Amino acid sequence: MSRIRHITLPGGFSAGAVHCGIKSTDQEDLTILACEDDASVAIMTTTNQVVGAPVLWLRRILPRGAGKARGIVVNSGCSNVCTGPRGIADAEAMARLTGELLGCEAEKVLVASTGIIGQRLPMGKVRKGIAAAGARLGQRCDSAALRGIMTTDTREKSAVIQTLIGGKKVTVAGIVKGSGMIAPSMATMIALITTDAAIAPTNLRRALVAACQRSFNAITVDSDTSTSDTVAVFASGKAGNKPLTLATRDYAKFAAVLAEVCYELARSVIVDGEGATKLVEIAVTGARSDAEAKIAARSVADSPLLKCAIHGGDPNWGRIASALGKSSAKVDPGQLKIRIGGVLIFSGGTGRKFDLPKVQAHLAGNEVNVACDLSLGKGKFTALTCDLSREYVAINADYHT
Amino acid sequence: MSRIRHITLPGGFSAGAVHCGIKSTDQEDLTILACEDDASVAIMTTTNQVVGAPVLWLRRILPRGAGKARGIVVNSGCSNVCTGPRGIADAEAMARLTGELLGCEAEKVLVASTGIIGQRLPMGKVRKGIAAAGARLGQRCDSAALRGIMTTDTREKSAVIQTLIGGKKVTVAGIVKGSGMIAPSMATMIALITTDAAIAPTNLRRALVAACQRSFNAITVDSDTSTSDTVAVFASGKAGNKPLTLATRDYAKFAAVLAEVCYELARSVIVDGEGATKLVEIAVTGARSDAEAKIAARSVADSPLLKCAIHGGDPNWGRIASALGKSSAKVDPGQLKIRIGGVLIFSGGTGRKFDLPKVQAHLAGNEVNVACDLSLGKGKFTALTCDLSREYVAINADYHT
Repeated sequence: MSRIRHITLPGGFSAGAVHCGIKSTDQEDLTILACEDDASVAIMTTTNQVVGAPVLWLRRILPRGAGKARGIVVNSGCSNVCTGPRGIADAEAMARLTGELLGCEAEKVLVASTGIIGQRLPMGKVRKGIAAAGARLGQRCDSAALRGIMTTDTREKSAVIQTLIGGKKVTVAGIVKGSGMIAPSMATMIALITTDAAIAPTNLRRALVAACQRSFNAITVDSDTSTSDTVAVFASGKAGNKPLTLATRDYAKFAAVLAEVCYELARSVIVDGEGATKLVEIAVTGARSDAEAKIAARSVADSPLLKCAIHGGDPNWGRIASALGKSSAKVDPGQLKIRIGGVLIFSGGTGRKFDLPKVQAHLAGNEVNVACDLSLGKGKFTALTCDLSREYVAINADYHT
Repeated sequence: MSRIRHITLPGGFSAGAVHCGIKSTDQEDLTILACEDDASVAIMTTTNQVVGAPVLWLRRILPRGAGKARGIVVNSGCSNVCTGPRGIADAEAMARLTGELLGCEAEKVLVASTGIIGQRLPMGKVRKGIAAAGARLGQRCDSAALRGIMTTDTREKSAVIQTLIGGKKVTVAGIVKGSGMIAPSMATMIALITTDAAIAPTNLRRALVAACQRSFNAITVDSDTSTSDTVAVFASGKAGNKPLTLATRDYAKFAAVLAEVCYELARSVIVDGEGATKLVEIAVTGARSDAEAKIAARSVADSPLLKCAIHGGDPNWGRIASALGKSSAKVDPGQLKIRIGGVLIFSGGTGRKFDLPKVQAHLAGNEVNVACDLSLGKGKFTALTCDLSREYVAINADYHT
């Protein structure tokens, strides 16, 4: 998945990264993404009520989730969560130092941190790191910038799509870290997306909210929503297209491309999920509403029993029916149809005779598809998850704080 | 935990059990509990929308969850879930056959089944089993009766309490199976409770609902609510006490004893949880309401990350704070206090210096206490769970349907 260029491919962006000593390894641990001019920016942050100091900073400078910004500074190795008022001052200092470097006020600089919960940032190292990363800003550090936001991810996860919008070539590029946690208490997902499309902040935010709904908000490794989840998209306008306005074909095209980039990034997080050996797609259709479809799909995707069964290659439809039934979404067993790998295995309230070798072959692959048709309406939602392995337990039990 | 007598200890009850061939092992797989005369009965059944045929039968004969009954027939090895209209006819046939034996109509006989989802009952074997178990009815088969409702539980789980109520000795006894699943798709928990107290069905049901709230409804092994969970309490009246009426001291005493028996049984289910090595108590206090305390406690108790950390003996308070924060219960990190084994490790929005060896020693034991004070009100709830081990994954991944 490693590409030489991604987030600086759209015009108007540069990136720099260094190892400044926050991580105990020698991997990069501080990344700056800089915008040549004020860029439109839109963010989505965690719904957890316990949030990190960087998220509090983002909510202060972007109370409506959108605005103008000149860049973002990200560190890995320490999430700056549950660190009290001094942690909030540390996050603000990171923005101020980066702003001095970029020639803008602190309020134009976003901040994100990922790593251990409950430890203060080593601000002496961070200060030097910001200066050093700033000195490296350019179009040649994309891979280092990506490594700088990773903790114990096992893959570099990025996505790039280019398309014509209003006659201009528009690029949307993104990087993401998450779910490859080996140390505990990682506060988990950060995604950075850049585009050269011209689009006002509120419209960009509208497109981001829609894109997240069926990408980042549709994935679950273990149902544990982190305290630091942050997705930020920057739009430089350098593509030269006419600024995108809602309810136009061009806006729809851009929104679709942004959604595709978000989906690719979200999918890559699951593939790199802790201990994961399989990507599992849970597609619920026929719910009374999209909202109920989401509840039902999440209930199946979060079922430890089913995730273990899939890990073992077992077509255990009883666990699927049970997970649907325990959810608050309306389910009628008599109407329900369950398919694994396209093969109908449950309908009319009871299991069917099915081609077991065919289903087992599907389960033996890297990607498993579970389709549940509730036959009650038009609501649909697809959740992505992974299997539950001994390795997940090992990763999360054997490390000591 | 095995006692020679438990459910037939209260006057008015007899029990019988046999191996009739539903299970592939030679363990008992069919149990009858019989009441000498019509007993008051109250039940609680699963909230899962996908329910087994026996649960449908219970809801038909006891639409308000309480009434009069002469007994219950239980089989293990096959849960009779998702078996269509023929499965429902099988459950009704079990009631009718047992009723003929006990000299009552089918509607006076409860039915419960536990085991694999999606397979029909072998009714020829069941028919012979009911006749054979009926022939053994007496006060000497309690242990066999308990084994007859077990699937792959590793312990015989029972509880007995005796007390004076209205000057009469009253006994409350119960047995439970569940959570020791090794085969997949077990539909999971069944508890049978007997008492010789005299109490009308609706009052008995009131006491049972209250007792379940802080016992069976407060435990979670893996958040997967089964399709067959059933708790039934029978009251024969043989103790000779004046029938218990609501809002009296005697009723309160009986309700407290019933709650204690339910709590002991529920606790024993967790101790015998799949792959469990530790019992974990999650006590939430200071919530805005008891309902929010329950939501918060369940969120912590269901967190796979925390359950892995506890398995590894790691005092990972970040995962506790995060699990509280992701719940829909109101949480203010600045007000939150977290204690493990009584030691304060988080307050004022940040981690505290604490006696690490003392906390690690607590975590190394068989019982772990996590206390979360939200400091927002008077709501409280205590959930019981177990740690998450590789063995849980092995149990649920390595067996093939």
